[in-house]
Amino acid sequence: MLVQLKEQVLQANLELPKYGLVTFTWGNVSGIDRQSGLVVIKPSGVPYEELRLEDLVVLNLEGEVVEGNLKPSSDTPTHIALYRAFPHIGGIVHTHSPWATSWAQAGTGIPALGTTHADYFYGEIPCTRPMTSGEIRGAYELETGNVIIETFRSQGIDPLQIPGVLVHNHAPFAWGKDAHQAVHNAVVLEEVAKIAFHTLQLKGACPPMEQELLDRHFLRKHGANAYYGQTKELKRDGA
Amino acid sequence: MLVQLKEQVLQANLELPKYGLVTFTWGNVSGIDRQSGLVVIKPSGVPYEELRLEDLVVLNLEGEVVEGNLKPSSDTPTHIALYRAFPHIGGIVHTHSPWATSWAQAGTGIPALGTTHADYFYGEIPCTRPMTSGEIRGAYELETGNVIIETFRSQGIDPLQIPGVLVHNHAPFAWGKDAHQAVHNAVVLEEVAKIAFHTLQLKGACPPMEQELLDRHFLRKHGANAYYGQTKELKRDGA
Amino acid sequence: MLVQLKEQVLQANLELPKYGLVTFTWGNVSGIDRQSGLVVIKPSGVPYEELRLEDLVVLNLEGEVVEGNLKPSSDTPTHIALYRAFPHIGGIVHTHSPWATSWAQAGTGIPALGTTHADYFYGEIPCTRPMTSGEIRGAYELETGNVIIETFRSQGIDPLQIPGVLVHNHAPFAWGKDAHQAVHNAVVLEEVAKIAFHTLQLKGACPPMEQELLDRHFLRKHGANAYYGQTKELKRDGA
Amino acid sequence: MLVQLKEQVLQANLELPKYGLVTFTWGNVSGIDRQSGLVVIKPSGVPYEELRLEDLVVLNLEGEVVEGNLKPSSDTPTHIALYRAFPHIGGIVHTHSPWATSWAQAGTGIPALGTTHADYFYGEIPCTRPMTSGEIRGAYELETGNVIIETFRSQGIDPLQIPGVLVHNHAPFAWGKDAHQAVHNAVVLEEVAKIAFHTLQLKGACPPMEQELLDRHFLRKHGANAYYGQTKELKRDGA
Repeated sequence: MLVQLKEQVLQANLELPKYGLVTFTWGNVSGIDRQSGLVVIKPSGVPYEELRLEDLVVLNLEGEVVEGNLKPSSDTPTHIALYRAFPHIGGIVHTHSPWATSWAQAGTGIPALGTTHADYFYGEIPCTRPMTSGEIRGAYELETGNVIIETFRSQGIDPLQIPGVLVHNHAPFAWGKDAHQAVHNAVVLEEVAKIAFHTLQLKGACPPMEQELLDRHFLRKHGANAYYGQTKELKRDGA
Repeated sequence: MLVQLKEQVLQANLELPKYGLVTFTWGNVSGIDRQSGLVVIKPSGVPYEELRLEDLVVLNLEGEVVEGNLKPSSDTPTHIALYRAFPHIGGIVHTHSPWATSWAQAGTGIPALGTTHADYFYGEIPCTRPMTSGEIRGAYELETGNVIIETFRSQGIDPLQIPGVLVHNHAPFAWGKDAHQAVHNAVVLEEVAKIAFHTLQLKGACPPMEQELLDRHFLRKHGANAYYGQTKELKRDGA
Repeated sequence: MLVQLKEQVLQANLELPKYGLVTFTWGNVSGIDRQSGLVVIKPSGVPYEELRLEDLVVLNLEGEVVEGNLKPSSDTPTHIALYRAFPHIGGIVHTHSPWATSWAQAGTGIPALGTTHADYFYGEIPCTRPMTSGEIRGAYELETGNVIIETFRSQGIDPLQIPGVLVHNHAPFAWGKDAHQAVHNAVVLEEVAKIAFHTLQLKGACPPMEQELLDRHFLRKHGANAYYGQTKELKRDGA
Repeated sequence: MLVQLKEQVLQANLELPKYGLVTFTWGNVSGIDRQSGLVVIKPSGVPYEELRLEDLVVLNLEGEVVEGNLKPSSDTPTHIALYRAFPHIGGIVHTHSPWATSWAQAGTGIPALGTTHADYFYGEIPCTRPMTSGEIRGAYELETGNVIIETFRSQGIDPLQIPGVLVHNHAPFAWGKDAHQAVHNAVVLEEVAKIAFHTLQLKGACPPMEQELLDRHFLRKHGANAYYGQTKELKRDGA
């Protein structure tokens, strides 16, 4: 079942240690098959180097396990809430990558300070409000998803234009059209968090970049008039 | 004698350079067999890449060498004091890992600023008081253990809930149920020290995280109602 | 056509990940053959590990593609503007290397604070002024080149003595007598940006180094009386 | 001639990139044979990966080349001045390692803030005064040695107890009983510089550590009553 999606989710999970985003098992990636409404996610607490295709857990959008012998990631309810609220995303990643986590712990969104940011995130990467005692004591991981969704809806942010968020006192989530792109965006979020940190140390309170520059860089990579990269996939000899 | 424990202590020592916790020989790991009351520890000044099973030193809880031709780590009296005072710990690690050491040199405990911290340490990681001239001139390494013990007892801290400490102007110690878990906690301590450093740089004086969030994350990984990870060991084909 | 130059530009592009200057495809190197006035540059969006000699794009100084099936780097107009304005440079590199980018985002030139800087850059590495809305909305990449050229001409800076620049809210460009030396200078720029950052954190507003020391170090490596390094290429046995 | 010393100096030079102390060729190690008064040093500008035994240059303490076809390191007069002034040192290393260089650029000695420092450096690692215009324009590299010597003599510092220095606006030198130990001390200096930097960021102006703790740690590793490490060389089976 969903072998291709599982293969992609497996590879995306293995990219987390490759890109230095995780310590131990502090991260998980999922992907969704929108046709069947089934989500494939990493099992909880399994080291990446031991992870096999058959360890991945398949759930439906009600959060019921459909296939798999292991417990899914404890963050699964967050993933499922996001898939339900953001219908155009196909992959989600959660890590405790250290630079993004520093911003999350400070409770501060990452302002758009330069073109590296603008190439991927069309404005400030928001930080959620602190969760209430009730949310924390209740269905905590589901509420984590809800507070992310609230952040995007209340501020009118399009999750395709800002494919990531900081959860207050916690850590980042990122997403994309599929699991691979979600990890790609998580890598960018971490790099952008690092560069923004040092920018602020150099400059103190730093105004965001000019709106025109933000537009130019985001739109040269995204949307109908994008002109970065090749227009077709690279075709190699014999391919 | 104690071959299994020695093997574990050897592997745990080799994890120190693997996880980037040590420069040269600046770290040591020990483990204890609670039945016999015997401690296995790294010999002093031997590079990790040369370390062999038969180099490890076995001592009793009076600090007497029971087996081994080499001198034990100069920090051995600290390890033994902690084993005597904290009867439920099975492994101890000492390093000069740079981020934790920066906090130790600043003489400041690491406040609980986010869930990465809360997943392993149930509150602030304390820093001991400065040692007195008498303690330093006296049985220094034993007194190092004593000042750690005093820190935990006087503040009513459970060493199983806060499995690490900063020794003032010195460096961290961490522990766990065995040598391997002690190193695991030392890795977390270093990562948490780094993230907390950057959080404070971003935010200045930062209040600790909400108590509910601290509870939720510590208790989802530890104790009777933990739900992170798999409930049984992974069984592999043919295993 | 231009096989030797292509080989050099290919190798120089591969040095970007080797020296840790790039995340994903965030950098590009070009080289010019001054005799024919032809520029060889990396294609847009192609990962370094897939890059082959035949993927490189050849353009003339009017920016017209002369050879190659792929789209050139989206930054090509910046490269060409610099080749036209700075007739003695033979290679150009653009990256988003994180330390230099932090300075660019802060909108601040990197002052000459020590001999590491002085060995390669004969004074402050300038940061351009912010680009105007018109420049950003117009021929943006060409205007990026123009604002760099304006910075050097209006401040009377010799691009051979300061072989790099920070583009405001964007990232660094560096250059040299060929593509390889351009990357060499980009590595130095990143290292110098890192050291200068930490110097200012230690010292606050830090005056630039003494002019005599700047002279001494730059001139012991560059110009007629340079005495660093070997005067002839190393000849090896059998070579 | 001096084959054993050359082998040691070659290996010590190769340790510079291994320990991450150098970018490109930004470092050099020498060693001295006190009997003959001959110094072996790296040639100028030769990459470490190309360095061979026969490339090393031999000079006498008058700075005359006695053997070797290549130009010695441009910093050779500094090395020779130090060998003449500090008769008990046997190896010297100069690098631009980034953390130590940040302190040198800030013009500030590295205070003894913890036991990591105290294990190797018996007090503050000093920074020289700025060099005068005359010194810079004159025999600059010789004067660099002279200002180091002046720093130690005028402050009554024993170069065996503080085996390293920061040259103002420049970078560190370190030394030891031989070339290998000099590199060892350079690694420690860089690590100590990094930890001290972060300590000060956490704490602002931080007083030095207690003198008793400094004494205890330095003296447990050095001098007649040292008790760290093994008292004899490790003997391995068959060795």
